[in-house]
Amino acid sequence: MAGEPLPFDPILEARRQWAAHGWADAADGMAAVTSVIRAQQIYLARIDSVLRPFGLTFARYEVLMLLGFSRAGSLPLNKMGTRLQVHPTSITNAVDRLETQGLIRRVPHATDRRTTLAEITDEGRQLALEATEAVNGAVFATPGLVGADVITLVEVLQKLRRSTGDFSEPT
Amino acid sequence: MAGEPLPFDPILEARRQWAAHGWADAADGMAAVTSVIRAQQIYLARIDSVLRPFGLTFARYEVLMLLGFSRAGSLPLNKMGTRLQVHPTSITNAVDRLETQGLIRRVPHATDRRTTLAEITDEGRQLALEATEAVNGAVFATPGLVGADVITLVEVLQKLRRSTGDFSEPT
Repeated sequence: MAGEPLPFDPILEARRQWAAHGWADAADGMAAVTSVIRAQQIYLARIDSVLRPFGLTFARYEVLMLLGFSRAGSLPLNKMGTRLQVHPTSITNAVDRLETQGLIRRVPHATDRRTTLAEITDEGRQLALEATEAVNGAVFATPGLVGADVITLVEVLQKLRRSTGDFSEPT
Repeated sequence: MAGEPLPFDPILEARRQWAAHGWADAADGMAAVTSVIRAQQIYLARIDSVLRPFGLTFARYEVLMLLGFSRAGSLPLNKMGTRLQVHPTSITNAVDRLETQGLIRRVPHATDRRTTLAEITDEGRQLALEATEAVNGAVFATPGLVGADVITLVEVLQKLRRSTGDFSEPT
């Protein structure tokens, strides 16, 4: 985790082991999947350390941003789960915590009594803006990749996300 | 998460919002980082569902494989944390659980009394083999990407991992 860099790439070493054990047809995929899992650890650790002073996790930050981007500043909870592609329980937990923090409030739907909306507060909008400036500067504008690699990564993972059924948009 | 695909790519929509809010210099990086986080969710869910019948998580599976690949079938706990690039606490938790399951055992180091080794058992080797065949078939050999995209993903994320200081090997 922290500490000295290893003198070799542990994922390429695992790929070598995979091939040597007769699993050559799965070796590249193993390296790809393991690389994604490691990259997520790297990025999430960076994001969480930036968001912590704001009292936010990445999950709560995503909820705040989604509400901030919405036309009315509010969305039904179930719609938020669909949009953020996370489990309803995660949304409920994030909303509970954000409400306690005064960054959003639950409001009843105007016409559908079974639906609860989450609505961002002025404090929520202000904090989302400050947090975004911090995360942009420390992570998103400097993602550890340069030039075409950033776009390449987005495009390759878009194929994975489409093939998994995240979305059906043609391009 | 589950359910119908969205009629649009939510990450490209977020990138559009980012640019529209004046954060164009961070928009591609935001899309790349968010894509990695979503890809990790996709892969980890697939792996965990394959490993669950074996009584394994991905973290415990990685520990088993690392021990199985080692020359002596055993490694010091601190070395395992370095190799798997995870926190010592995670290694301790995984080793505790694997030991309870009879898949590894803790043994004292032959010459260094302060060092504890984890050693894979015959049962551990057998289970690691069966689990690998299952994960290879269901995930690693079919990573939701085809052809050059698999290698491209490995290579781009290798640059990220190197720039983060995971390893210092020149290529």
